[in-house]
Amino acid sequence: MSKPSGPLSRDGWQWTPQTGLKAGVPTVGVIQPPSTAVNGTVYDVAIIGAGYTGITAARDLTTTGHKTLLIEARDRIGGRSWSSNIEGYPYEMGGTWVHWAQPFIWRELFRYNLLGTNLEVSPTEQGTCAILNKDKPTVTMSRQQEDEVVESAMKKMVNVDGKYGREVIPYPHDALRNRAAVAIYDKMSMADRFKQIEHDLTPTEKLMLEAFMSITCGAKWEEASFFEILRWWALANYTYTDFMERGLRFKLACGQSGLQRCIFDEANATGNLSYSFSTPVASVNDKGSVVEVTGRDGHVFRAKRLICTIPLNVLHTVQFAPPLLPLKKQASLEGHCNQVVKVHIEVDRPEHRELGSYNYPHGKLTYAFGDGTTPAGNTHQVAFGSSLPGVHLQPEENINETIEAWKGLLPNTDTKDFKRIVFHNWHKDEFAKGAWEWLKPNQVSKYLDALREKQGNVWFGSADWAMGWRGFLDGGIEDGQRVAKEVADDLSGKPPRPAFLSKL
Amino acid sequence: MSKPSGPLSRDGWQWTPQTGLKAGVPTVGVIQPPSTAVNGTVYDVAIIGAGYTGITAARDLTTTGHKTLLIEARDRIGGRSWSSNIEGYPYEMGGTWVHWAQPFIWRELFRYNLLGTNLEVSPTEQGTCAILNKDKPTVTMSRQQEDEVVESAMKKMVNVDGKYGREVIPYPHDALRNRAAVAIYDKMSMADRFKQIEHDLTPTEKLMLEAFMSITCGAKWEEASFFEILRWWALANYTYTDFMERGLRFKLACGQSGLQRCIFDEANATGNLSYSFSTPVASVNDKGSVVEVTGRDGHVFRAKRLICTIPLNVLHTVQFAPPLLPLKKQASLEGHCNQVVKVHIEVDRPEHRELGSYNYPHGKLTYAFGDGTTPAGNTHQVAFGSSLPGVHLQPEENINETIEAWKGLLPNTDTKDFKRIVFHNWHKDEFAKGAWEWLKPNQVSKYLDALREKQGNVWFGSADWAMGWRGFLDGGIEDGQRVAKEVADDLSGKPPRPAFLSKL
Repeated sequence: MSKPSGPLSRDGWQWTPQTGLKAGVPTVGVIQPPSTAVNGTVYDVAIIGAGYTGITAARDLTTTGHKTLLIEARDRIGGRSWSSNIEGYPYEMGGTWVHWAQPFIWRELFRYNLLGTNLEVSPTEQGTCAILNKDKPTVTMSRQQEDEVVESAMKKMVNVDGKYGREVIPYPHDALRNRAAVAIYDKMSMADRFKQIEHDLTPTEKLMLEAFMSITCGAKWEEASFFEILRWWALANYTYTDFMERGLRFKLACGQSGLQRCIFDEANATGNLSYSFSTPVASVNDKGSVVEVTGRDGHVFRAKRLICTIPLNVLHTVQFAPPLLPLKKQASLEGHCNQVVKVHIEVDRPEHRELGSYNYPHGKLTYAFGDGTTPAGNTHQVAFGSSLPGVHLQPEENINETIEAWKGLLPNTDTKDFKRIVFHNWHKDEFAKGAWEWLKPNQVSKYLDALREKQGNVWFGSADWAMGWRGFLDGGIEDGQRVAKEVADDLSGKPPRPAFLSKL
Repeated sequence: MSKPSGPLSRDGWQWTPQTGLKAGVPTVGVIQPPSTAVNGTVYDVAIIGAGYTGITAARDLTTTGHKTLLIEARDRIGGRSWSSNIEGYPYEMGGTWVHWAQPFIWRELFRYNLLGTNLEVSPTEQGTCAILNKDKPTVTMSRQQEDEVVESAMKKMVNVDGKYGREVIPYPHDALRNRAAVAIYDKMSMADRFKQIEHDLTPTEKLMLEAFMSITCGAKWEEASFFEILRWWALANYTYTDFMERGLRFKLACGQSGLQRCIFDEANATGNLSYSFSTPVASVNDKGSVVEVTGRDGHVFRAKRLICTIPLNVLHTVQFAPPLLPLKKQASLEGHCNQVVKVHIEVDRPEHRELGSYNYPHGKLTYAFGDGTTPAGNTHQVAFGSSLPGVHLQPEENINETIEAWKGLLPNTDTKDFKRIVFHNWHKDEFAKGAWEWLKPNQVSKYLDALREKQGNVWFGSADWAMGWRGFLDGGIEDGQRVAKEVADDLSGKPPRPAFLSKL
């Protein structure tokens, strides 16, 4: 039944009625052989992490002639974004949706000719929305009605300035431009904002907004900065339609791992790339003339410059000499708050392709929608679960609980309709320690500048501190090309731009 | 008075009360020395044209190790987009406005760290709009009222499907996806569409829409494809606010030539770039193993591959052997229709910074707005003039007529208030033969695919046949990186992407 299209990664989980729950999922993101690193070499650049940031930097550096070593803890590329590839069908285990308003990933998709019909519609605009609750009858409405309710609620939430946040963030890709306003809203938690608008929400608006936001920030509302939703909203052109279209509408038939392989393979084809997968890093030692990276297995790699793309929540687990800047270290120790759960199913119910559903506040999976149709003609649905106390699902711990959580989102669905469950538990993943970044109150103002700073010969790149689509796929590519350019400029000794522009 | 910040280009015109009208304007886009080409060399790639397409391709090819020759007819980079640099202030002679919804140019601005305060607001949102007419009293309204009128009119124009064009162009960066619908609206001229909606426009809507559209397509309405405005509208997210923000709001303090120099200088710093400015091309001969490019002066350049970025309206003036594909040749002979006029003034009237104005149908300059404040504290206004019969201004032919045309747009302004006039006459420019591309009826359906095709060892790149922002700065960069990647893949003999994606 399960004909893998690609080697098996250690990452992810798959359940079918035939096999039960098994660790590991096939993906084209697994690179074989796992290592081409050459002992004793001093590379021009070493890169820790083969997520979008790391592979973008590796591609940009190798194609421009730099001997580059890519070091990755996992057995695959992609970091927090990768697609399992089951019978030729991609289930996106992490970051999924793309849009032409995301400039950096759009350019990559164009570069590899991955647009056209490779751009697929994920949730449908038409269909039904169901609101389920174990204590009440199910409420159904059209998707259009759903949009009207959520739009009304979200507009109340973000309208802090009478202009839906435009005054706070006039430049979405330079979100801190208006620092004074940023400080005001970054101090506030999502809970603080909910308290301000609660009286103005209808009961349905309140339920749907809370459900949607609980899986957007993936945290207790007291722990999630309100600024972050203003920022998402600004990036989404300050409108609900664009918010949904840019965040949740288009995905790739080739899977994120397909695009990633284009980037990785271009780097690899240069002959300038070496790599070492399944190599978690223990320590980084910047000795001035050379940077030493030591794996947990004791292996030492050397390079003139280092790009570290370790995510915010993991950065503190690696020893740095000289030590990390205090604000970097503190930011990582605090961590961002997003511990959202994402689980896919293949379900033998074609009509669920056009279903969206909510199960809040009891559901261990809170929000789901039809994401595609599998090669077998079944519906592929994706669900998100919150990390709120009492409902934080660990899907591999008890697969029956996971199935029950799914049934709580799908009206009149039986266990026998379930053909497959696929997921990656990001919460328990030691190399991610969470899902997409959602900062806690005050963290934007306090840490973001420091997180972008280089230290000596070490540059830090990540979607977690990108300028534009921070916390998104696009942000990872953005910051990957930034650090690659900065490192290349540093190695060349040439100014990054003409002298007459130096005062800018 | 006029302290140039950069060498003088032959291109452009400048008038001041002190100097009168003089040909040539200073710009950082002039490259000195004018040639570094080495006789007898067979380059990996030759590129004809140093506009955005050519310099992007040159940067992408030289940084990846390809010996590249850039051949340019003018004495400067930039093609149809360049900034004069007068006393440190940029007047944009051609393409001007940028936005984060334009992915390719946005990435370049990010790459060279040219965002932040380098992104400047051009026309203000606040202020006054004046409608002037030699036969009637001047009408004034707020800019907000202006927006309401033009929005109402434009929505009527583009709403062919009850969804403001979304059904016709659901994917703005893949505008021909829905070929059947495209064919319907590409057959129509702007005049055809005006006739359909005329009855539904108020007199003010009609006047402002006609004035605005006359300088958007830059042609007689019978000659301009209606499809093109649907495409602009789709690229601008199907809303008027976004249309204005993406098309006319943000410009660069460093000028377009500043960004172009970053791209050019990065290429030049590799040591892989040679160039020959002031070298108009007479012929291209693809001999199979080598492509020969012969200048009008008889000089012959040789390369393994050629990228031709000659604009649509000029392409037919170069001899190709083997000959251009018939559809390419025919498209170029027909040409696109845009012959719009663009003229800047520096005017000693600070209050005009917030003025927008219309003078239609009599004005030889039709539409103007405050574009900035010069170092001397004067207002910089930019005006566009249509090419409609009887009002097609040739600004250098009679500078007094040009001043009078300007006075027709500025209430109560005297000649003595005029401190400077700057422009480039694109209509008379033999290397452009027009302004930004606006195709004629049927040309999109008939020619666009053919224009993108390679022939033998010759690739064709231009904003004029880009996929996304066709006819815009962004499109030039998009197509430059496309052809550079295709040529590099061809030279390497490596597949452009992994085998498992080959069926896409």
